Amino acid sequence: MVAPTLLAPGWERVARPPSLFRRYDFASYRETRAFLDGLAALSDETGLFPDLGFGRTHVNVTLYGAGGGAPGDPEVEFANRTAALAAASGLAAG
Amino acid sequence: MVAPTLLAPGWERVARPPSLFRRYDFASYRETRAFLDGLAALSDETGLFPDLGFGRTHVNVTLYGAGGGAPGDPEVEFANRTAALAAASGLAAG
Repeated sequence: MVAPTLLAPGWERVARPPSLFRRYDFASYRETRAFLDGLAALSDETGLFPDLGFGRTHVNVTLYGAGGGAPGDPEVEFANRTAALAAASGLAAG
Repeated sequence: MVAPTLLAPGWERVARPPSLFRRYDFASYRETRAFLDGLAALSDETGLFPDLGFGRTHVNVTLYGAGGGAPGDPEVEFANRTAALAAASGLAAG
């Protein structure tokens, strides 16, 4: 039996369609861009491509499971790594 | 009297909320990223920040007017310059 993987604070599991969601807010466009660049690198590394919606100072991240199914461990791990990227983006632009 | 500025093909004027919209599709994530980088440079130049939604191979661009009003000439000009960016992104990644 596998223990359910814990989802980082700030993220929510959405029932329909099955997905993981979080909104990040930033103080400037520069921070937003830094975060998006970090996400792009994470996508290159993991092969997972979230749906992203963003404006000048916010980014909405939505992760679907493979083939449209429920998000699994890879998506949860991706989600859990975004907080560090967001923190780094804020610090870099400080 | 000022002639109405012509909106480039592929774009639509949305009534509610008043905005300009276009979806771009790309052959690869690399092209999508190149296009987003081009948009970022255009935002830096113009001071206009569209709402962007994107996945691996598509980008939805929505332009609102200043202060939430109807899009004006600056937004139309921004819209009209995105086609060249999209073409360049496709060519660069080809």
